[in-house]
Amino acid sequence: MEIHQLVQQIKIKKSFLCVGLDTDTKLLPKYLAGADDPIFEFNKAIIDATHFVTVAYKPNVAFYEAQGEKGWLALRKTVRYIKDNYPEIFTIADAKRGDIGNTADMYARAFFDDLGFDSVTVAPYMGRDSVEPFLAHPNKQTILLALTSNPGAADFQLGTTDQTALFEKVLETSQTYQNAHNLMYVVGATRPEYFQQVRKIVPNSFLLVPGVGAQGGSLAEVCKYGLTDNIGLLVNASRAVIYASSEANFAEKAGEAAFKLQEEMRAILNKAGI
Amino acid sequence: MEIHQLVQQIKIKKSFLCVGLDTDTKLLPKYLAGADDPIFEFNKAIIDATHFVTVAYKPNVAFYEAQGEKGWLALRKTVRYIKDNYPEIFTIADAKRGDIGNTADMYARAFFDDLGFDSVTVAPYMGRDSVEPFLAHPNKQTILLALTSNPGAADFQLGTTDQTALFEKVLETSQTYQNAHNLMYVVGATRPEYFQQVRKIVPNSFLLVPGVGAQGGSLAEVCKYGLTDNIGLLVNASRAVIYASSEANFAEKAGEAAFKLQEEMRAILNKAGI
Repeated sequence: MEIHQLVQQIKIKKSFLCVGLDTDTKLLPKYLAGADDPIFEFNKAIIDATHFVTVAYKPNVAFYEAQGEKGWLALRKTVRYIKDNYPEIFTIADAKRGDIGNTADMYARAFFDDLGFDSVTVAPYMGRDSVEPFLAHPNKQTILLALTSNPGAADFQLGTTDQTALFEKVLETSQTYQNAHNLMYVVGATRPEYFQQVRKIVPNSFLLVPGVGAQGGSLAEVCKYGLTDNIGLLVNASRAVIYASSEANFAEKAGEAAFKLQEEMRAILNKAGI
Repeated sequence: MEIHQLVQQIKIKKSFLCVGLDTDTKLLPKYLAGADDPIFEFNKAIIDATHFVTVAYKPNVAFYEAQGEKGWLALRKTVRYIKDNYPEIFTIADAKRGDIGNTADMYARAFFDDLGFDSVTVAPYMGRDSVEPFLAHPNKQTILLALTSNPGAADFQLGTTDQTALFEKVLETSQTYQNAHNLMYVVGATRPEYFQQVRKIVPNSFLLVPGVGAQGGSLAEVCKYGLTDNIGLLVNASRAVIYASSEANFAEKAGEAAFKLQEEMRAILNKAGI
């Protein structure tokens, strides 16, 4: 998928909501326990209930890997289901991979070619040759970790490197990588005060923003500096949407939670004249 | 597995060789193409031929993921095969995972509990709460990336943070994490000049050293500063061993390549009086 298609979808739906499919077998509604593939059945119900107001789905690969081959199959079926039924929706493998060149190439093939995701999250620690094999895939987006939403982000990402914080150096350096036009960045909602610095370095890049909802980030604060003329934001909610209820009405409640977020987003987009 | 068991095995085998199972379906000997599970058959033959002189096996998870569910099954069978037949050998999932707390916990479960690996490689970019869920597993080792062997390592790892290179900060900071005694570190053989600095910060930690062989690192130079009284080194070779031949005699040739590396290691250990 090309970025302009994502932007078009955002404008049509008046939403830049990404729903994180962190599907935990321990948190599934009880009545799904007997299903042949409870993870997929849960995802399918969530997707059907939220797709009207959602422009991206982001399965968190760890939750599928923890279930072994079955989990991997559920992941494959989930992406397939989205592509078959809602082909306009952007898909993100939240995998945070990062390894040397020939290995990065294998990961890129796994997520882009074999599973068919539109994008994958990648960790920057190993530098250029760990990122460029992902960027080499045309019409696929590589979402590099810059400033994450967790407390541990303070350990290294905020440290200074020649007067520049590591996350700023990651933004700057990665812009020199080959096919950098295929880059997006993860910037957490829990640190909205840094969005201004981020936008100084990457004024137009799309940012995937986790941390709204369960982690406490504010949508309005993120948009204050994060929003661009071309929107430039995908705001993720995972637990706040998919676990809105643990009862039989879980999908309906997830739909309501997503709709509520979209209403906030619509107001922000309208106010910005987008 | 506990570290003293690994050390004991190294002393018995006079080897600190780790063989990387970067099993690429495109590089398998042709006659395996018809096998039911060619990846596993290849690994099994390599393991049987090299186990005498090998103290650790390190499947590179990307190569298995690129084959989807089948690859995941081949990975599971490979670890199982090692544990069933050579239970003294240390197993490393080279996965380079790194994500926020609840997700890191899922990855730890996938590799330690579900697949049964003794250790997993982890990326430090997201800090404390992305690492501690791995460290919480008793008798399991978490191998944190410090200074990697690839050219891209220069992008961020060698950058200074308040006069300290990022890889030094990673070593220092991670030593304050809960259960830090379960930490090992990746330090690449392609930068032997840094081993002295590494040993100043972590004088006793085990280091997993990639980059000898195909990537050009020197075993003697690594050992000069890396070796401790308790050995403290696992030196990995992947392609140089497993692709020593692409003919029907690939396993025999892999055994010879591993044996040649072990001879160098034996000489080093003897000289050091270990």
